[in-house]
Amino acid sequence: MTAPLASEKAMVPFVSVHNMMRLIHHLGIETMLRELADLIEDDFRRWESFDKTPRLASHSRDGVIELMPTSDGTIYGFKYVNGHPRNIAEGLQTVTAFGMLAEVSTGYPVLLTEMTLLTALRTAATSAMAARHLAPKGARTMALIGNGAQAEFQVLAMKTVCGIDTVRLYDIDPRATEKTRRNLVGSGLAVLPCASAQAAIEGAGIITTCTADKQFATILTDNMIGAGVHINAIGGDCPGKTELHRDILLRADTFVEYAPQTWIEGEIQQMGRDYPITELWQVVTGERPGRHDERQVTLFDSVGFAIEDFSALRYLRERIRGTDFHEDLDMIADPDDPRDLYGMLQRAR
Amino acid sequence: MTAPLASEKAMVPFVSVHNMMRLIHHLGIETMLRELADLIEDDFRRWESFDKTPRLASHSRDGVIELMPTSDGTIYGFKYVNGHPRNIAEGLQTVTAFGMLAEVSTGYPVLLTEMTLLTALRTAATSAMAARHLAPKGARTMALIGNGAQAEFQVLAMKTVCGIDTVRLYDIDPRATEKTRRNLVGSGLAVLPCASAQAAIEGAGIITTCTADKQFATILTDNMIGAGVHINAIGGDCPGKTELHRDILLRADTFVEYAPQTWIEGEIQQMGRDYPITELWQVVTGERPGRHDERQVTLFDSVGFAIEDFSALRYLRERIRGTDFHEDLDMIADPDDPRDLYGMLQRAR
Repeated sequence: MTAPLASEKAMVPFVSVHNMMRLIHHLGIETMLRELADLIEDDFRRWESFDKTPRLASHSRDGVIELMPTSDGTIYGFKYVNGHPRNIAEGLQTVTAFGMLAEVSTGYPVLLTEMTLLTALRTAATSAMAARHLAPKGARTMALIGNGAQAEFQVLAMKTVCGIDTVRLYDIDPRATEKTRRNLVGSGLAVLPCASAQAAIEGAGIITTCTADKQFATILTDNMIGAGVHINAIGGDCPGKTELHRDILLRADTFVEYAPQTWIEGEIQQMGRDYPITELWQVVTGERPGRHDERQVTLFDSVGFAIEDFSALRYLRERIRGTDFHEDLDMIADPDDPRDLYGMLQRAR
Repeated sequence: MTAPLASEKAMVPFVSVHNMMRLIHHLGIETMLRELADLIEDDFRRWESFDKTPRLASHSRDGVIELMPTSDGTIYGFKYVNGHPRNIAEGLQTVTAFGMLAEVSTGYPVLLTEMTLLTALRTAATSAMAARHLAPKGARTMALIGNGAQAEFQVLAMKTVCGIDTVRLYDIDPRATEKTRRNLVGSGLAVLPCASAQAAIEGAGIITTCTADKQFATILTDNMIGAGVHINAIGGDCPGKTELHRDILLRADTFVEYAPQTWIEGEIQQMGRDYPITELWQVVTGERPGRHDERQVTLFDSVGFAIEDFSALRYLRERIRGTDFHEDLDMIADPDDPRDLYGMLQRAR
């Protein structure tokens, strides 16, 4: 029999937050970050085989809700994600997410999962994968400006993928820095809280900005940025939200995920359309140079792209196969005769 | 306390196929169809308050996968739905769906549900709501061409909303007609299987076409259509898929859900852009006439629109409140301190 039983397809594997945490501890977070960085790099290498579309965003006064779909022709995936900066004042996450995969050939869902944790992992893995191509050789110190929910994931990915051994932390709220420092005890990293952004970036080869204000902000100004550093800017990720002064962009070589989306959401929304950018996949494939000079300032203007979620979902699907890190949801109506949906309903009485 | 506990928000009510069937039997399918038709009409009446966007479709050789989002400014909803005509040969549903609602103010999901059954209900309720405005007064007989998974839902909605007492069935596959006839035993309707589409439409005031071929087909030709009938065309719902000869459209007054989408997916894709159409919400609000003449041929060129799903999801959310027709999914990561996602993960070890 070539076609799988309909009844198998009617149950959709679901990874809850609880099971995602179990899986992360089972595999080890650094192993996951490393494997994810490799898988994302693989998918960037076959960039041109993906269906790409800017995310579908629904903006409101308080935030944004987005759907980010993509497909490689065999598997279709999308992520639901929100961004609500004011949630934090109510004790809620600013970003929550869930995602799914489906078979292109049948349209049947094959995975549903929490994606708040998975997004933190994939964002960090993407940052580290980009830094592997763009950061100065031998960089061992990173600065992390903005010590919120993404902080530790960013640091651990840079450690395990790029060999960072020291992290310098700064946040406008010292409690956020203290939270991050405390969480990184036992990570094997030297963790140095700093009193200002300026202090944090001293000696850092990699500078990650990861702040949450939904407005044009200037976390870094040009005079703060020395030659040769790599800037990983992940906090500016929606219209009107940026973190870097435009003079930095004028000096930097800037790399983006998917240009049509980054023009709307990234740091480069401050620049004219003649501003030169390179899509990161072109560096991964060797088509365009990444870092070519030790004095070059490189900028990864990262807003998060659907293919990264796709890679993460694909990774998760492989990793839960044959395990109990999922439950099965009765989500797809499955009549014996597909034309007899009503008969199934009647028989359930 | 104004903000709900984060821990409440972290659990997302989920309506499985099993629970959806329990709910339908609990409420009664005709009651649900009637209430849904009313709620959809309410939402069509406030049409202009919705965020509208054509669905985001990913087409492949075998079918299409679509995301259909909308928002009324308070609640955001979307549906995932596929259309894979060849699935039926493998014993799978051609259309499966699931949907969700989220709070616009926080982005937190508040409902996840199977939507295969719910879509069949909302499609039928929408057809009946449109027919309430467009069908000839006193129509008691409907013809149903195409007797697949939607068939009984369509018939019961026209019965309970419009007062149909007789249904004439035709399908190219007599087994589909027999399935529909059998399922409608006990419905209180006179059910008459017919040997051809021509035979089925004899004496019918409402003609519903609901076939599944993914190609330009001609289920009805102009010479078959007498004066004064209402045609409810729901099978032509993607590019290249139509059911009616264009000469019918030249004679009919045509009503659509959302013009930008129907031009791509509906029967009117056969027509030039100067072809006159009316959006149904304009009839609901009284801004434009519906049926104004007993000899007029009216056509509801229905492709399904996000607002109908939104209404159905909103209805479901109300109907499961305080019941056990749902379970709660641990889908949203919910750290005590929203900035401490990593700490939550560590403590789960």
